[in-house]
Amino acid sequence: MNFQDELKKRTEEIEAVLKSYLPREEGFAKTMAQAMNYSVLAGGKRLRPMLILETCRMFGGEDKLAYPFMAAMEMIHTHSLVHDDLPALDNDDYRRGRLTTHKVYGEAMGVLSGVALLNYAYEVMLTAFDLAEDEKARARVIKALKVMSHKTGLYGMLGGQSVDVENDGKPMSREMINYIYENKTSALIEGSMMAGAILGGASAEEVAVVEKAASGIGLAFQIQDDILDVTSTAEELGKPIHSDEKNHKTTYVTLMGIEKASQQVAELSEEAVKLLEGLNKKNEFLFTLVKELVGRRK
Amino acid sequence: MNFQDELKKRTEEIEAVLKSYLPREEGFAKTMAQAMNYSVLAGGKRLRPMLILETCRMFGGEDKLAYPFMAAMEMIHTHSLVHDDLPALDNDDYRRGRLTTHKVYGEAMGVLSGVALLNYAYEVMLTAFDLAEDEKARARVIKALKVMSHKTGLYGMLGGQSVDVENDGKPMSREMINYIYENKTSALIEGSMMAGAILGGASAEEVAVVEKAASGIGLAFQIQDDILDVTSTAEELGKPIHSDEKNHKTTYVTLMGIEKASQQVAELSEEAVKLLEGLNKKNEFLFTLVKELVGRRK
Repeated sequence: MNFQDELKKRTEEIEAVLKSYLPREEGFAKTMAQAMNYSVLAGGKRLRPMLILETCRMFGGEDKLAYPFMAAMEMIHTHSLVHDDLPALDNDDYRRGRLTTHKVYGEAMGVLSGVALLNYAYEVMLTAFDLAEDEKARARVIKALKVMSHKTGLYGMLGGQSVDVENDGKPMSREMINYIYENKTSALIEGSMMAGAILGGASAEEVAVVEKAASGIGLAFQIQDDILDVTSTAEELGKPIHSDEKNHKTTYVTLMGIEKASQQVAELSEEAVKLLEGLNKKNEFLFTLVKELVGRRK
Repeated sequence: MNFQDELKKRTEEIEAVLKSYLPREEGFAKTMAQAMNYSVLAGGKRLRPMLILETCRMFGGEDKLAYPFMAAMEMIHTHSLVHDDLPALDNDDYRRGRLTTHKVYGEAMGVLSGVALLNYAYEVMLTAFDLAEDEKARARVIKALKVMSHKTGLYGMLGGQSVDVENDGKPMSREMINYIYENKTSALIEGSMMAGAILGGASAEEVAVVEKAASGIGLAFQIQDDILDVTSTAEELGKPIHSDEKNHKTTYVTLMGIEKASQQVAELSEEAVKLLEGLNKKNEFLFTLVKELVGRRK
């Protein structure tokens, strides 16, 4: 099977896992459950759950224990998109060609259902304890939970989001941009791969290597996003282009130009794959996924 | 020591625990940490952490294991107030005589720092695993975590909030009001007392009794709120009165009148204390606290 077919097949498997963890739309709070499911089912690459699963497999872990974390990570990621789209933040009416959550369910429900997704992610992750068969597996679940919450919060994605919002439209230093990319984008990529590694049974040293690789992958992913915003067409990308320029956003491209930015993407992804290969664990699909990700056209 | 002095002393102890868990205001995301601390340090009765601690003590548990859960519960409660005050929800400029979080830090930071508090609550609760000395204690932490997340989310406080928001200003059935009170108000009271009981080593049967008592306490607490909105003065209450009438809000008072509502408060609190006393565990302070709570004048 070639990589694209394999990717499609695995994405479908992940969709099924994700759906199995969504709340039922019933009872008085039915609308909240509908709003939660609406945002999660809007589609997407399902990259983060895929990274959890494949990194877990790389270390010889069982898929089963990774499932709740995969669903939870996609809920955490989705919650951040729902809030990003709110009028007080980016004020976006459309995402992936569909109306954003607050446009369908109102702003109050946009806020509340976003939070409910984040909280539900924890409810789902905590069910992993019921799947853990021994003390060793429970210890892994505890470690993975800690990583997930740390990378999501003040010292991870939410912290990065806050600095991004606070400095919207202002000129930014390279140091600040790095902080924002490292947290707003890389943190959940790191959290995904680290949680996968931990659940798969990786040692602390191996988890540290995975974190470093994931950090590079996240950064390369974000710089590639900046590049595509300049070089791609709206048709290719499926969303408006030149948005960074319009919003006077400081990006890697505005800081160092397209050529150097592209060079950095190539270097970062090469280094990340080298780090992962250096662990002497096999997962060709994961390595190809990383390479394809950073060289992507959309 | 009389009850009021004892209450004051214990509230101060809880403030100290809470402060010890707050994030440091440093680094790029300093403003987010400041906004989080600003809302938590706005004051309040600290009722929920007090219920965790006292219920834990009632079952002979150690204070130490309860501490992270106490701090976390107050963060969860505070996050719900921060979001409730947002322009898209209740649009309140003041709470407890201070500007609300979004009035000081802007609406985007109001949304994000509220979420960050919720997520930080989980980070804090997960540190309880480091305090748990054996497998038995870790099992209690897992159970308490599950209760906290369940009572916070779609099937608890957030679900109640969503139905309240969705039906704002509309006439509501008694059934729907019960659902809202049970979830928006009682759920966190239940979560607090159940988590305390679990951490203290209560059996599943005992936890079920505690849940039932807490449900009654939460309902009585909310009905008393409705009554005070009609019978109290703004000076006594420290916030505007007759707000329910102005907002055309259906409450227990509009549904059944003040007299019957007051009667129900008395019955509910009496029943709750009876349930707790029936467990044959001692904690006079907790029993008095419950009685004082529901008969309160503010």
